[in-house]
Amino acid sequence: MGRKIGLLQIDPTVGDLTGNAQRLEQMAHLASEHGANVGVTTELAISGYPPRDLLLQDEFIRLAQQSASSLQVPIPVLVGSPIEAQASRQLPGNGVVRAGSTDVVSNDGTSHVVARKQLLPTYDVFDEARYFQPDNRSGIARTIAHLDLGVTVCEDAWQAAGLTPSSYSADPIEHLAEWGRQGVQLDATVNLSASPYHADKLSSRIHVCRTAARILNHPFLLANQVGGNDDLLFDGNSLVAWPDGRVVVAPAWQEGVLVVDIDDPSKCVWAPSLSEDALCIGQDKLRHLAADDKGHEYDKDLLEDLTDAVVTGLFDYCRKSGIPSIVLGLSGGIDSAVAACVAVAAVGADNVTGLAMPSRHSSRHSIDDARHTAESLGIHFDTIPIDSFHSSVEDSIGEVLSTGHPVASENLQARLRGLLVMAHANAQGHMAIATGNKSELAQGYCTLYGDMAGGYAPLGDLYKMQVYGLADIFNTRAEHQKMVPPVNQSSRTKPPCAKLAPDQKDEDSLPPYDVLDGILHSHIEERLDAQDIAEKGFDRATVVEVLTRLERSEHKRWQMSPAPRVSSRAFGQGWRRPLASRHDWRH
Amino acid sequence: MGRKIGLLQIDPTVGDLTGNAQRLEQMAHLASEHGANVGVTTELAISGYPPRDLLLQDEFIRLAQQSASSLQVPIPVLVGSPIEAQASRQLPGNGVVRAGSTDVVSNDGTSHVVARKQLLPTYDVFDEARYFQPDNRSGIARTIAHLDLGVTVCEDAWQAAGLTPSSYSADPIEHLAEWGRQGVQLDATVNLSASPYHADKLSSRIHVCRTAARILNHPFLLANQVGGNDDLLFDGNSLVAWPDGRVVVAPAWQEGVLVVDIDDPSKCVWAPSLSEDALCIGQDKLRHLAADDKGHEYDKDLLEDLTDAVVTGLFDYCRKSGIPSIVLGLSGGIDSAVAACVAVAAVGADNVTGLAMPSRHSSRHSIDDARHTAESLGIHFDTIPIDSFHSSVEDSIGEVLSTGHPVASENLQARLRGLLVMAHANAQGHMAIATGNKSELAQGYCTLYGDMAGGYAPLGDLYKMQVYGLADIFNTRAEHQKMVPPVNQSSRTKPPCAKLAPDQKDEDSLPPYDVLDGILHSHIEERLDAQDIAEKGFDRATVVEVLTRLERSEHKRWQMSPAPRVSSRAFGQGWRRPLASRHDWRH
Repeated sequence: MGRKIGLLQIDPTVGDLTGNAQRLEQMAHLASEHGANVGVTTELAISGYPPRDLLLQDEFIRLAQQSASSLQVPIPVLVGSPIEAQASRQLPGNGVVRAGSTDVVSNDGTSHVVARKQLLPTYDVFDEARYFQPDNRSGIARTIAHLDLGVTVCEDAWQAAGLTPSSYSADPIEHLAEWGRQGVQLDATVNLSASPYHADKLSSRIHVCRTAARILNHPFLLANQVGGNDDLLFDGNSLVAWPDGRVVVAPAWQEGVLVVDIDDPSKCVWAPSLSEDALCIGQDKLRHLAADDKGHEYDKDLLEDLTDAVVTGLFDYCRKSGIPSIVLGLSGGIDSAVAACVAVAAVGADNVTGLAMPSRHSSRHSIDDARHTAESLGIHFDTIPIDSFHSSVEDSIGEVLSTGHPVASENLQARLRGLLVMAHANAQGHMAIATGNKSELAQGYCTLYGDMAGGYAPLGDLYKMQVYGLADIFNTRAEHQKMVPPVNQSSRTKPPCAKLAPDQKDEDSLPPYDVLDGILHSHIEERLDAQDIAEKGFDRATVVEVLTRLERSEHKRWQMSPAPRVSSRAFGQGWRRPLASRHDWRH
Repeated sequence: MGRKIGLLQIDPTVGDLTGNAQRLEQMAHLASEHGANVGVTTELAISGYPPRDLLLQDEFIRLAQQSASSLQVPIPVLVGSPIEAQASRQLPGNGVVRAGSTDVVSNDGTSHVVARKQLLPTYDVFDEARYFQPDNRSGIARTIAHLDLGVTVCEDAWQAAGLTPSSYSADPIEHLAEWGRQGVQLDATVNLSASPYHADKLSSRIHVCRTAARILNHPFLLANQVGGNDDLLFDGNSLVAWPDGRVVVAPAWQEGVLVVDIDDPSKCVWAPSLSEDALCIGQDKLRHLAADDKGHEYDKDLLEDLTDAVVTGLFDYCRKSGIPSIVLGLSGGIDSAVAACVAVAAVGADNVTGLAMPSRHSSRHSIDDARHTAESLGIHFDTIPIDSFHSSVEDSIGEVLSTGHPVASENLQARLRGLLVMAHANAQGHMAIATGNKSELAQGYCTLYGDMAGGYAPLGDLYKMQVYGLADIFNTRAEHQKMVPPVNQSSRTKPPCAKLAPDQKDEDSLPPYDVLDGILHSHIEERLDAQDIAEKGFDRATVVEVLTRLERSEHKRWQMSPAPRVSSRAFGQGWRRPLASRHDWRH
């Protein structure tokens, strides 16, 4: 009898119980064909993660659990699913049910519930205490295809590694290990995860799995969701760690099955999904790590990974929301050029329209650069000068503008462009995308209802210097395909400018982007305050200016479209919708 | 020695530790002048509620707790404050510290921490499991001004009344009662609350206090926050209940002190705050309820209360955010007329600008009605026809529009208006407000970046029929002041229309508003599904149409400005930012 476990790395659509069930059934067959004796899905695979307020509907929970336990599969599969509440005025569970063969004994007497999540993350992007009742029992699936498996759900494994922001009173991994010391022998422990992506998150997940395998003294297998759900991205990278530290990692940004031979790392196999609409953006390769390999990726690979992440986000947003095509403004600058590259990678050049909308302040050069990007990518392109609209609005409310703040007339241009982009979107059924980056948005250097207009902001969590990095990646990829690099050298090197006033350059209002990015990264990702950041060598007055603008622009960011989460932190201290900046308690 | 407790009903600004401390000190003096022996604030009074992600900064917690415990007050005061975490990798507490005299013995050995919240609501608008560590000990303040008091924080009192959506494993009121049965005699129990408003919420709070007083067999006093914080409103209505069911309720929408003589309901006194910037919108009256009075308000009063709620929301948003003045579009319809009334009540007629922006589809009548509202209210008024802008944009992208969906040209008009309103706002330093109501927003019958543009949506949680109710209230209030009723009878009676196409009426696209409101209310507030709603007597096809539009318009509402929460539920099932509608699992 083999000892092979298939990790079903799925890209589920939130709420699509029928579609997700079909995907899981296909993958279970694939796993079986590759010799797996049992399958393990990702967390809440049947509902997709995060189901959020769908979980407040009892009928949804009931249907999800029913779909999960009645999957038609050739091998037993442990399926992540919401579980009905055990009593009235209790919340449902985030659990695991058994589908397929019936030779499983669960730990709570019900026929098919194998485990319920014990640790419910309620920080950053997680809200699980809001939706679920925690369990306090270890999940064990006995004699499932002749294997005895420990069963944990995502966060359950993280307490042992000490990688959660605050500590829990329980530790499910230690608990399973204690059972082992009491004589309960398990062949392996599995973990059903929906662990969101951020750059270099994989090294944390490897540490978690190695820690668990070492404590449990048997292989630890983690099946992770893949794909995009609005601003949340999941990278896949399902993996297995052995007690001696060896690790095998599945591809990122791809659906498929990692078939793990728990007795021999070298016999692990990756079987990509054969389904027509399967996610298959990442590279099709397994990675084997030796016991002493930390698994940190190289800088170059991180940027490739970031590019795939951003493309996956937009691809899945369009696919899952039924959006066929995209329209965006092309200014000739680096942001809109890179956004166009992302759009083409996500929905194809035929389905992308770029609009150059020059004002009286635009140079010939800008229009040429915009056209270059459009032509290299092969997208639809049109030029609509906005100067006449701008002038006629200025004439009609001249006094209001001339006696007021000059930013009003600058915003007018951005809003006229937004209006033209939206007119194309509404008339032709495209989705408008916003092209701003995290550095600009953090400074409020953008116009609400203007360049911020659109259903999705593909670059919204990328610092400006990362946008340059993506430009290089897209150019290199084009060269590999013998195509013209889409981001012109002049877009790449000219000083960034908003082109809303004569000879305007971003650096007139903002510090140079390498400095700005350094300050923002220190504050947002590393949580340093002004004092700490100044001590790193940044000019203190600049730091205070940047942080003040960051706080003042909070209200604008409220109204932002989804932007894929690729940094370790979204704006602000956490992820909740903040109050409008009311009072700066530090001054 | 008297037995008088002052409940400090404060309108704190989130994050303004210094300002909130000053307000509390003034109120403590006021309480003392009216004979109170001890003061009790609202929940987290020193930081304001909800402090949200400010709580992730350790330094903020430290400063808040320090400010709370070092208040300069003439009587001892129990102050709601965040409390520093008790160990590393733990969360802070939501607690109560003692300020003023030092004759308090707390239950945990630290000198001034009297209690920590035990039940942390994590549903609807609450996120407390995200920020706080729960406590499991009863809060007691002994011999504070010769009184022994039980001390609870908001949710702690709600489990006993069975009014929370799911039940907690502990019940702090029963726990205190058990101490009483063991011989620990308390004079009264206090509750520090930040209990958000929705229409007719007061009757629930009265039930909670009566239940607690009956179980504890002594008076139960609840101090509730007042004022607006973005979309959250707090009505005040601090109250006290005696074991026999008698109740005294403080005014709503006003800052001040309810001085409670715990031995004699008839000796309770309301002392309004004397501070210049105090909130004083509600009526200055105490309400005494006999033991058998349920405290349900009459319909007429509910509408008055709703009006005060909506005015408080905008007033506080402007005051706390430093916004001096408001601009809005005036269409001649009921929504913008009522929004203008709210704006005038919030910031004064001198600080409000109304813009009529007629298109080719606007009637002479509409402009006259807009002018009537502006003139009756005495606000600034201007007329800017948009037809020439509309035509010139149409000319330049004629083919895109003519071959596409007709909604694009309708949206164009709304966006041109949004652009003009925003130009006024940016140039002159006003805040634009959006005038849409909950019924429209629920159906997506509004234009993103058009009439949805603005920093705040004062009517965004009012159903259309409630907007008519507010129109009557504002007209009646004007008559009482011998002024011209601002909402013209023709705005009041003409069929609602968006005026974006010839002879367009809302009822061409939507069911009549009384029907629409009935369906929406059943689904959003009562959580009924299509089947249940049809069984109430609504046409089933209409119900399905309305619910489908509700789901499809989710993405628009994402990008909505704050709207004051006045219904029992905001959009969707809960309050979290939903995913864009991905998949309707019910069809």
